Amino acid sequence: MATLSEFSLIQHYFEQLTPQREDVLLGIGDDCALLQCPAGHVVAASIDTLVEGVHFFADVDPESLGHKSLAVGLSDLAAMGATPAWFTLAITLPEINESWLKGFAQGLATLAKQHKIQLVGGDTTRGPLTISIQVHGFVRPEQALRRDGAQVDDFIYVTGTLGDAGAALQLKLQQLNESSLHDEDKHYLQQRLERPTPRVEIGQKLLGLATSVIDISDGLLADLGHIIDKSGVGARLELAQLPLSVALQKLNSNTAEQLALMSGDDYELCFTVSADNAAQVESLLVEQCTRVGVINDQSAISCVDQNDQVIEFQGTGYDHFPA
Amino acid sequence: MATLSEFSLIQHYFEQLTPQREDVLLGIGDDCALLQCPAGHVVAASIDTLVEGVHFFADVDPESLGHKSLAVGLSDLAAMGATPAWFTLAITLPEINESWLKGFAQGLATLAKQHKIQLVGGDTTRGPLTISIQVHGFVRPEQALRRDGAQVDDFIYVTGTLGDAGAALQLKLQQLNESSLHDEDKHYLQQRLERPTPRVEIGQKLLGLATSVIDISDGLLADLGHIIDKSGVGARLELAQLPLSVALQKLNSNTAEQLALMSGDDYELCFTVSADNAAQVESLLVEQCTRVGVINDQSAISCVDQNDQVIEFQGTGYDHFPA
Repeated sequence: MATLSEFSLIQHYFEQLTPQREDVLLGIGDDCALLQCPAGHVVAASIDTLVEGVHFFADVDPESLGHKSLAVGLSDLAAMGATPAWFTLAITLPEINESWLKGFAQGLATLAKQHKIQLVGGDTTRGPLTISIQVHGFVRPEQALRRDGAQVDDFIYVTGTLGDAGAALQLKLQQLNESSLHDEDKHYLQQRLERPTPRVEIGQKLLGLATSVIDISDGLLADLGHIIDKSGVGARLELAQLPLSVALQKLNSNTAEQLALMSGDDYELCFTVSADNAAQVESLLVEQCTRVGVINDQSAISCVDQNDQVIEFQGTGYDHFPA
Repeated sequence: MATLSEFSLIQHYFEQLTPQREDVLLGIGDDCALLQCPAGHVVAASIDTLVEGVHFFADVDPESLGHKSLAVGLSDLAAMGATPAWFTLAITLPEINESWLKGFAQGLATLAKQHKIQLVGGDTTRGPLTISIQVHGFVRPEQALRRDGAQVDDFIYVTGTLGDAGAALQLKLQQLNESSLHDEDKHYLQQRLERPTPRVEIGQKLLGLATSVIDISDGLLADLGHIIDKSGVGARLELAQLPLSVALQKLNSNTAEQLALMSGDDYELCFTVSADNAAQVESLLVEQCTRVGVINDQSAISCVDQNDQVIEFQGTGYDHFPA
């Protein structure tokens, strides 16, 4: 234990685990990495931090944490339609625990291989457990999927199912009546919280088709809220259309609806498509997405039930610094 | 206090403070930033983390901390000869303290303006004070200043003076006999620790001239050690040539020498130049650099005094995870 210098930690545990790409002219081990962006493309970059006690529990499986730390960034690349390429890892550790580090590196590396993304640099420091990962991908600038392109009458879609990660968090905090859930439901929900699937392939299929895309990290209402703010439009959501997993359907329907609208950490995509392109998108993404509403010329999000009654909700999602 | 959501924190305090660049196609406020690397160049990227209690004291002036957080990354760009362009900021804060944030942002922004580097993204989380900054610049790949190009008989140079930051740290920790230092000396040393000057212009002047470059963040012996490891060579340092500030010259000469060799955080550059290019480098960098030794065919660093006697030292520099 604790026989490795800071300099060699990243190299020892991580360097060989991720794919080796030809566009990395210089990787780990110099003052900077040197990264070659393909002609006609621009670099898409995003940084996210996970902090123990805020984003994950101290007892989380390190392999799951490695997975999630990278998945969060890959989800941002997905939401731009970018091709994943390179990432850096800044990790602050209270101590060097070899088995923990091996597990964390394994979770990170398995997901990195799936998405052909290479670790190109890092920094290791001592302190309270904190993980910052910056991901880089590339995309043709004229195709990049931004938040500001939604138009009135566009349809609104989401991928996968919503509220699962939020339900898992409430289960963990014993804030959810779990009497209706089997062990397999609980396991499913926990996996959704701890091992989210970044929708990278879906993002790339949306290039040239979606008018706006965002990933749902803070909850559907909050993140769709960013699309309507940036696009200068409004939205109408049909609550009956919200896609719920089998596990969520077993919960009280109000609870499930609130989780689907307001809980974060699902890392699904929310996107808008013009009516003209809707059929093409739906045939490309069979069973991978659900139409949940429409963009309108209001300046807010209204939610309607199956009887077309407007439903009010308090709050819009997850916030580390509530007012 | 605490009336701003996480989403708006970075935008509120930081977005408008840094230069707006034309090669930023999309900045803060989407899932990713979109960054255009000039033709013929590659992206140079580096991430560094500063943790309270490890890299800085809790009572540090927030403006100095903002400066240093960016300076550390700029120093890595300097060591590649890269032109600074973009950075991201992941900051974990125990609370939202407006005056602290304004000071921190001001220190960051002042240095950012000097180097025309734009903040293009970030993440704010709640937790123990931790700052990760990833810097990006660009450089022609065939010119980039790497660690692995030092050749036997190259001269070894360092910029500025060495050991000042280490002396300031020892002063702060009351580990230094300060009887010989005036208040202006102490102020100078503190500034060297808290407001290091990244040698970006010097790095660019070395393009095409230096055979290897590294920035001195962990101490000269440790960082020159990386050059000789990567280059497969050895080095001979002349202790009498180590550049010492007026303040350091007032200390016991053994103490000053050890600080110059082994203390970190100076953020000067160490570089090697062939004998053929030495005159050109020395005339380009008049008074900005000092020749301190020569590369040889050994596999280690030897230090010699003015009588050519070899001096032994224990340890090589700064390490957050000592064995």
